[in-house]
Amino acid sequence: MKLKTTILLSLFFTVTIAKAQDSLMLRKIYDETLVNGQCYSNLHYLCKNIGARLSGSANAQKAVDWSKRLMESYGFDHVFLQEVMVPHWVRGAKEEAYIIEGNNKIKVQIAALGMSVATPKNGLTAEVIEVHSLKQLDTLGEAAIKGKIVFFNRPFDPRFIETIRAYGTAGDQRNMGPAAAAKYGAAGVIVRSLTESLDDFPHTGATRYDPNGTNVPAAAISTKGANRLSELLKQNKSLKFYFKQNCQHLPDAPSYNVVGELKGTENPNKFITVGGHLDSWDLAEGAHDDGTGVMGSLEAVRALKALGYHPKNTIRVVFFMNEENGDKGGLKYAELAAQNKEEHIAAIESDLGGFTPRGFGFTGLTSDQLKNLTGWKKLFEPYGSDRLIAGGGGSDIGPLKEKTPGVVLIGFSPDPQRYFDVHHTPNDVFENVNKRELELGSASMASLIYLIDQHGFN
Amino acid sequence: MKLKTTILLSLFFTVTIAKAQDSLMLRKIYDETLVNGQCYSNLHYLCKNIGARLSGSANAQKAVDWSKRLMESYGFDHVFLQEVMVPHWVRGAKEEAYIIEGNNKIKVQIAALGMSVATPKNGLTAEVIEVHSLKQLDTLGEAAIKGKIVFFNRPFDPRFIETIRAYGTAGDQRNMGPAAAAKYGAAGVIVRSLTESLDDFPHTGATRYDPNGTNVPAAAISTKGANRLSELLKQNKSLKFYFKQNCQHLPDAPSYNVVGELKGTENPNKFITVGGHLDSWDLAEGAHDDGTGVMGSLEAVRALKALGYHPKNTIRVVFFMNEENGDKGGLKYAELAAQNKEEHIAAIESDLGGFTPRGFGFTGLTSDQLKNLTGWKKLFEPYGSDRLIAGGGGSDIGPLKEKTPGVVLIGFSPDPQRYFDVHHTPNDVFENVNKRELELGSASMASLIYLIDQHGFN
Repeated sequence: MKLKTTILLSLFFTVTIAKAQDSLMLRKIYDETLVNGQCYSNLHYLCKNIGARLSGSANAQKAVDWSKRLMESYGFDHVFLQEVMVPHWVRGAKEEAYIIEGNNKIKVQIAALGMSVATPKNGLTAEVIEVHSLKQLDTLGEAAIKGKIVFFNRPFDPRFIETIRAYGTAGDQRNMGPAAAAKYGAAGVIVRSLTESLDDFPHTGATRYDPNGTNVPAAAISTKGANRLSELLKQNKSLKFYFKQNCQHLPDAPSYNVVGELKGTENPNKFITVGGHLDSWDLAEGAHDDGTGVMGSLEAVRALKALGYHPKNTIRVVFFMNEENGDKGGLKYAELAAQNKEEHIAAIESDLGGFTPRGFGFTGLTSDQLKNLTGWKKLFEPYGSDRLIAGGGGSDIGPLKEKTPGVVLIGFSPDPQRYFDVHHTPNDVFENVNKRELELGSASMASLIYLIDQHGFN
Repeated sequence: MKLKTTILLSLFFTVTIAKAQDSLMLRKIYDETLVNGQCYSNLHYLCKNIGARLSGSANAQKAVDWSKRLMESYGFDHVFLQEVMVPHWVRGAKEEAYIIEGNNKIKVQIAALGMSVATPKNGLTAEVIEVHSLKQLDTLGEAAIKGKIVFFNRPFDPRFIETIRAYGTAGDQRNMGPAAAAKYGAAGVIVRSLTESLDDFPHTGATRYDPNGTNVPAAAISTKGANRLSELLKQNKSLKFYFKQNCQHLPDAPSYNVVGELKGTENPNKFITVGGHLDSWDLAEGAHDDGTGVMGSLEAVRALKALGYHPKNTIRVVFFMNEENGDKGGLKYAELAAQNKEEHIAAIESDLGGFTPRGFGFTGLTSDQLKNLTGWKKLFEPYGSDRLIAGGGGSDIGPLKEKTPGVVLIGFSPDPQRYFDVHHTPNDVFENVNKRELELGSASMASLIYLIDQHGFN
């Protein structure tokens, strides 16, 4: 009995001391980030001195070069590039679009969907058919659709608290609408911007053509433009819509993931990855999507290093290339991980903006492991980042699941209310990022990396 | 045994059904607010058609008149005004300020502190002494201070996660600094703006003179201006500072709290109050401070009414007057409550901006009652507003504590990261409010009102 008691007591004190140490370390991480954080000024540079950086563009290459130098300046143990071929799509001249009723032309704001083909050189003019779902196309059939511009206008559902779910449920219109409408002979496609915000910014984003189908020109229309068009259609079904875009698909181009490492002192071949994507849409500065993701991730590793932390496992920050229109960087990262027989413990992705952190979602934990997160929740409570829930990941880390089985995929969850106001728009600029919100997110990622590195998931 | 089991089972089912009903009602409240919410458009009107509304101003009266009509338009059971005398302070012409080194004048942005006296007509020029605390004044003494401009420059501490604590710990400089410096013969006082944000907006706010002391002119300087002044002082202790402001104190003026009620069906003389303050500083539109508080509170009651909810107790929305520079409306409300022998169950105050709700802080609950909040936390979890913690209240509901003992005071807690970027500045405008964030806050208040009305705190 006595020995058992001693063992139990000793276990109790060990656990208690570990918790106190963890709590202390989290406080140090938050202090370092809130007092000496560099993510906000780094984001400023990325947005203002480089700017938009769509895959294959000169700016994307500038971003790669600068990011590598930045990681090197922090004295990480190893900084390197992973070459990857990426699609190279260009928007060309600013699009134009009008609703036409007789001699009356009403200008509306559109932006070609990423990967879309151009309209004919002088634009495309046709009658419009408004639909609210892909299924409705099947009901309408070729007779109603052929030669027309299909106008997908199902709005964001405001009732979802997690806006990503509204994006998910409305997103088929942009992702698959153009391919589906083309099957019925549509001349072109206009999609209501994927946002609840009522504004005059078109929200671009990639569409996926059917490799065996016809590629019809497709564009996003601002929500105000969509409302206008829908109202006018109610009065006049035979009005016409004109739009012109001269985007094009150039040959694939070489680009890079940018990777920085703090080498593991005990398990150098076991990895904890944190990252976001370096590429951005071409309409603005890619501030929240995903400048905050890369700069927040980098800051997490910088802070750990600045605190003199020597990780047991290798910690990697990865700036993935080509999330927006191909996911080639994420695929390459996983492929190389498998090739190099790396063991991946966990990968954290930040690609939902740089807003106040709420917590993390985990994929790949057993129910017992999920229950064990309760202790970490307590540690995160004072920082408001304590929503540790099942389910989460991201486009860039997703491929690791298959290539490095056993990896736990983790999605960073910032507050989701403002993301789709700026996402993929001309409004995704540095000025819409708050310094403290970005820093708190970064500190929460650094804290999670530390906890995983120290304790794993058991 | 059998009877006991039956009773227990029946209790179990009653509790379970009640929970299911509550859960359903919360979903209805959120849906109503997110789909049909009017707080955002009401806030737009308040900000753009009325604007700044400092106590005693013509705009404050306009806001009172419009608010009363708005409440009446919702068909509340009773809408009325509570007259209250309020201070009437006016800023006068825009202030001007320079750092002076020989012939070199560097313009900086200042704003007179609320309730401050004017400088002499041609402005005040004097040497500057920089201090970081009130205590430091005592150490320096009259010899070092007399005839000088005291420059309080202790910055916001960025390490606090809850920014209100940074405001609390830096706030003595603005609240009491001018009175304290006057005791040692200071000619004037300049206070670093109470924000972490590095910008060129001065943040005003009230200062409290010593009724038996000398009133010296006092102004807030922007954080960029403060940094500049501090740097230059390091090189040249004998530089001078010039500022001119012609604010004045007019005689007290009559004004009003605006009150709307849904009458209690069971306990008409028991009250649940929700509210914010209608007055705002004069530099902008009082969007977050406290347009969102009043419009969010009103929306909470509107939504309950729109859902056909008939409360057991009387629910009151109160737009308090004069929170910013006198708290006279809050004092009057409590005084009348006592006079009319009203029983107040709870009062919720929203005065920390219209950001994504995190939860509520409670003052006046026993530890058992606090534990009982666990069930409500579960109900709030899907909406992210589940931080129900001890401690909370607000300036306007505070006086109820003494006047109606037994009342539970509740502070609405939105995400705190951005509030002090705009608080009391020319930047507190409608454009900095997000529709969904405001609506979610309002829905969380409506939900809490519903739960208190149904279950009390036991």
